[in-house]
Amino acid sequence: MAAQLQTAVIGPTGYTGYELLQILFRHPSVKVPMLFVREGSEKTGTIGDVYPQLNGKGSLPMQPFSWATAHQAGVDLLFLATPHEFSREFVPEAIRRGFRVVDLSGAWRLQCPDNVAVYGFNDADAQLAKQLTDEAVYGLPELKKEAIAHAQLVANPGCYPTSIILALAPFVSAGLVDIDAGVICDSKSGVSGAGKAPKADTHFVEVADNFRAYNPTQHRHRGEILEQLKLASENLVFTPHLLPITRGMFSTIYAQLVQPLTPQQVEQILRDFYKNAPFVRVFAPRLPEIAWSVKTNYCDLGFALAKDGRRLTLFSAIDNLVKGASGQAVQNMNVMYGFDEREGLQ
Amino acid sequence: MAAQLQTAVIGPTGYTGYELLQILFRHPSVKVPMLFVREGSEKTGTIGDVYPQLNGKGSLPMQPFSWATAHQAGVDLLFLATPHEFSREFVPEAIRRGFRVVDLSGAWRLQCPDNVAVYGFNDADAQLAKQLTDEAVYGLPELKKEAIAHAQLVANPGCYPTSIILALAPFVSAGLVDIDAGVICDSKSGVSGAGKAPKADTHFVEVADNFRAYNPTQHRHRGEILEQLKLASENLVFTPHLLPITRGMFSTIYAQLVQPLTPQQVEQILRDFYKNAPFVRVFAPRLPEIAWSVKTNYCDLGFALAKDGRRLTLFSAIDNLVKGASGQAVQNMNVMYGFDEREGLQ
Amino acid sequence: MAAQLQTAVIGPTGYTGYELLQILFRHPSVKVPMLFVREGSEKTGTIGDVYPQLNGKGSLPMQPFSWATAHQAGVDLLFLATPHEFSREFVPEAIRRGFRVVDLSGAWRLQCPDNVAVYGFNDADAQLAKQLTDEAVYGLPELKKEAIAHAQLVANPGCYPTSIILALAPFVSAGLVDIDAGVICDSKSGVSGAGKAPKADTHFVEVADNFRAYNPTQHRHRGEILEQLKLASENLVFTPHLLPITRGMFSTIYAQLVQPLTPQQVEQILRDFYKNAPFVRVFAPRLPEIAWSVKTNYCDLGFALAKDGRRLTLFSAIDNLVKGASGQAVQNMNVMYGFDEREGLQ
Amino acid sequence: MAAQLQTAVIGPTGYTGYELLQILFRHPSVKVPMLFVREGSEKTGTIGDVYPQLNGKGSLPMQPFSWATAHQAGVDLLFLATPHEFSREFVPEAIRRGFRVVDLSGAWRLQCPDNVAVYGFNDADAQLAKQLTDEAVYGLPELKKEAIAHAQLVANPGCYPTSIILALAPFVSAGLVDIDAGVICDSKSGVSGAGKAPKADTHFVEVADNFRAYNPTQHRHRGEILEQLKLASENLVFTPHLLPITRGMFSTIYAQLVQPLTPQQVEQILRDFYKNAPFVRVFAPRLPEIAWSVKTNYCDLGFALAKDGRRLTLFSAIDNLVKGASGQAVQNMNVMYGFDEREGLQ
Repeated sequence: MAAQLQTAVIGPTGYTGYELLQILFRHPSVKVPMLFVREGSEKTGTIGDVYPQLNGKGSLPMQPFSWATAHQAGVDLLFLATPHEFSREFVPEAIRRGFRVVDLSGAWRLQCPDNVAVYGFNDADAQLAKQLTDEAVYGLPELKKEAIAHAQLVANPGCYPTSIILALAPFVSAGLVDIDAGVICDSKSGVSGAGKAPKADTHFVEVADNFRAYNPTQHRHRGEILEQLKLASENLVFTPHLLPITRGMFSTIYAQLVQPLTPQQVEQILRDFYKNAPFVRVFAPRLPEIAWSVKTNYCDLGFALAKDGRRLTLFSAIDNLVKGASGQAVQNMNVMYGFDEREGLQ
Repeated sequence: MAAQLQTAVIGPTGYTGYELLQILFRHPSVKVPMLFVREGSEKTGTIGDVYPQLNGKGSLPMQPFSWATAHQAGVDLLFLATPHEFSREFVPEAIRRGFRVVDLSGAWRLQCPDNVAVYGFNDADAQLAKQLTDEAVYGLPELKKEAIAHAQLVANPGCYPTSIILALAPFVSAGLVDIDAGVICDSKSGVSGAGKAPKADTHFVEVADNFRAYNPTQHRHRGEILEQLKLASENLVFTPHLLPITRGMFSTIYAQLVQPLTPQQVEQILRDFYKNAPFVRVFAPRLPEIAWSVKTNYCDLGFALAKDGRRLTLFSAIDNLVKGASGQAVQNMNVMYGFDEREGLQ
Repeated sequence: MAAQLQTAVIGPTGYTGYELLQILFRHPSVKVPMLFVREGSEKTGTIGDVYPQLNGKGSLPMQPFSWATAHQAGVDLLFLATPHEFSREFVPEAIRRGFRVVDLSGAWRLQCPDNVAVYGFNDADAQLAKQLTDEAVYGLPELKKEAIAHAQLVANPGCYPTSIILALAPFVSAGLVDIDAGVICDSKSGVSGAGKAPKADTHFVEVADNFRAYNPTQHRHRGEILEQLKLASENLVFTPHLLPITRGMFSTIYAQLVQPLTPQQVEQILRDFYKNAPFVRVFAPRLPEIAWSVKTNYCDLGFALAKDGRRLTLFSAIDNLVKGASGQAVQNMNVMYGFDEREGLQ
Repeated sequence: MAAQLQTAVIGPTGYTGYELLQILFRHPSVKVPMLFVREGSEKTGTIGDVYPQLNGKGSLPMQPFSWATAHQAGVDLLFLATPHEFSREFVPEAIRRGFRVVDLSGAWRLQCPDNVAVYGFNDADAQLAKQLTDEAVYGLPELKKEAIAHAQLVANPGCYPTSIILALAPFVSAGLVDIDAGVICDSKSGVSGAGKAPKADTHFVEVADNFRAYNPTQHRHRGEILEQLKLASENLVFTPHLLPITRGMFSTIYAQLVQPLTPQQVEQILRDFYKNAPFVRVFAPRLPEIAWSVKTNYCDLGFALAKDGRRLTLFSAIDNLVKGASGQAVQNMNVMYGFDEREGLQ
């Protein structure tokens, strides 16, 4: 057996960090990851203190990050499951020191300054930040496999954009969508997407038996959708909603086609586009359901087509913590290191 | 005090029937309703046998319907909480005998033969059915108050159309919507809308932690939206989804305006249109939430407007069993009999 | 009509405060209550800022409490929906100034110093505290109606004790329970009982799809059960659990009878004991369900009896925010002021 | 690698059947199982018709069971995920033909005629049934590993008994429980335990936001608890409740010890008893939570001890479909065939 890869996870205690650990623990080509917390910002101890249900690996220590420790342990790949601001500040030094990085935050996903601006970063070295922005690869393996394979810095996509871009890409890239008519993305997310910190918005009583929209014109994930699909902002309507479930995401996407298609053609376009993508499943005529994709790395796609053959509705379901975050991060790692894309993810 | 109205409820054991009873029991201008079941189709006994939590009124008997019993008891208004087919067959005779009727089924909501066709009715007297179709008033009091006041037959609207029509009417009726650009209604409903009969689709395990779309191009409620808003079928996309909650409905509606408006103008249009409507609430800049309208007869509206002032997103929340069914039925009764529109509903 | 009572609610923004407001708003014998917040501890503004779904009464101002304002407004009864510590400090002065008080906190429910000790109060005037402790009436109207009628200070019971004491009282008071054999109370509560402040324990993701016990030997509500049922601590086992629902409480209570009874006798004992209690319902042979009592002021009781006629299981369901808190507070007010016990509560 | 085992699953379309498939598909020592449906009782086709989310294996055909087909395919082990009555009738012939059987139904779990009687079986050959009853091994590997290893017929335990017996066995087997004082088992189950067939009791609207007890004195699982723990019926109180979650089970068990113990002693008794049991986890002083055991084969145990050291409360959490059904069935298979007990289950 080839030597296993040594990884480290910075920020293992949040929902995406924990999900990532569970995948890495069972990944055959990866050693037990090192667990780091941000200096001063989190309790140390063992991961089992935070997740008592963790078995066997519960005694793994979490320690404040230090470059020396990471180097000595032979860490090659750093997973960042950290706040955007931390990643923005941390990554330049990590890259300089030669680590490869998969960053699960939004720090390096965007290139257009207007889109980056919504994060309000305060870069110490703006020129370096600009350069890293250019070098970072948007880690959607179904669209960027070649670039990911050689990337030093992979910006793991947001959950909403993952579900939306994968549904639209086959049609937009073929020039089949009437962009000027507008693309409407009505997305619904489970609560784990809002993170682990207790907030009024995530209090059980406020979420259960409820449903609501939020940030309808200005969600931070808009930029990723715009850039990856090359849309102008005025042509995208994106409305996130909060579902009373713990995990899972469903996007219903409305587009106008430039020419009428038959349902068979629509299905074939999807199947052809993803014929080599092990984590995209096409359902037709059935429609995907959130429950089918939860706890998997699949993005499940389906569609409905109006009688006129032009009003197309796409349905896309993922697990926001897996394909929408940590599963995709491991899929990116697999591509970066030449492992089978499915390793650890089935 | 004026003499109270004697009503009867046919089909009191389903979710809408039961909700209706609870409202009628506390309505100050209405006697205790008579409870009828369809002949041969349901158990008789008391309503308390079916709903043990019913207090005081639990000993009310349910009896097979007979015209003689209804006449002798002095029933004036019949509420039908029955299957579409039953209502379609039953109503002509009820009208002939001089009863006023509020029908909660879909039997008489539609006028256009193409739309009616989706129900597959087999009318014994097609001419009479056509005549009743013309006479029936679509019972959305916010839009049809005058006609409802004098109607003998009120067709109580579907839940999805209620949430959608109330949101769009102020803009469509003012000619502000670019109809040809398409109107997209992405609706999400709680499970009680699917009725009380146990089905695979409503099994707890299939619904909980799940979310899915269904009937995306051919839901029966399309016709109501088309007719009331005078839309051509090709301009309406309507996608119902199933939420893992017991009650509540949320519609997110996307329309293109013919001219740019400011958010202030949009808000004002909504407030002006509904200034005399006690059961429509406008939220701005906050957005409505399902939980706020559940167990009330309110339709809660909100909106988001893109920077260009033309891409308008409307949000509409109702309780599918109250404003979407039984509360609206009582609101219709209030209008029909000159009671205060809010009686029994607050 | 007699002059209406002027009340005030201190702490209207929590779940019990809000529930209380909704009841008071529709209570025919009560004026619109004044809303006070604790000095410095909460935002002022209107109640509608906190609960946008509040209709009509949403513009009611919340102001920092002052004795002068309360006196000038003619307030007679103060409802305290405040933290235990605040109530403990506030009540002595309120009583001295002649207000009547219904305190929804745990500050004055207990008499035995050992039981009080779990709250860790730091009384400025221990003697006065002791005196008030003696004067306070435990506000369970089914057991203490006479005393409540004349009380100046009513300590509104905890939710768990309400569900447990009402189930056991008919048997314990008749000497039918073998106390030494132990009384076991296995209680399950919805999440609203934990309050509105966001905590890790009430995060949606931690509660949904989950169930757990907490504080199995030392919950603060033990003392109320012990004192009201006159049990020694070693004879009570009380285990609270957290249900993944927003509201509702269910207690399953196990007791050994000193002599065999028939199911008919058990049912009769319950019915006789509560024959004048409008808010206790006895179900037999059916068992109560949480959903039947939610949004009502009922305590629903049922039972199962082993073949030997001695091992008795009691079932008790309430809405923790209504009969377990704010509904009971209004029921107490009704008794204190000679209103019909059911006013505002049906 | 050794030759893989050929298994067959009869009844793969229910919740336990499907869970079983998913485990067998990833089990390294087992071939892809054959899928059989009962003759005439279910649709044939592929398993993917029923579970569209099944990947890769979705095209596996389901065929009506025939002995010839099973023999030709070289099936050695039959898993029965079938109704009790079917298993009762089917197993004698399967045993006669030399198949080994793991029966997930309740058909062969009980030995005492009184307990068996609750199933109301109508055995064609009563003597053979009696003989098989004696030969069948109760498949709780933590207690019966030796017998399971050599068994031809393993009766897979019920979910409730699994959770209860594993918690009590260390104390009952050591003679530490005062049996005459009574053992009280307050159990709460997710809805999947009620099976996949739609019923009024499992309708989403009836279960969500609700909680209730059912069958408090006569649940069919009582017999298993009595027989395995050697309790007399009058000393067991067992109350099942229905939780509004899809999967997971939590039992709170109350017992009186014959002598006072310290918490440390209680913990040590649990740890010693299960020191070689890979699927029992002991939590102390933390308590187990349903969410930690869901989708695992663990039985998680915890406890609370009253100050007197004698009133012991045990907490036990399992996934009713895994350790309570299909995971345990595979664990039994592992023991029967000498595989590592954990294979396929981690």
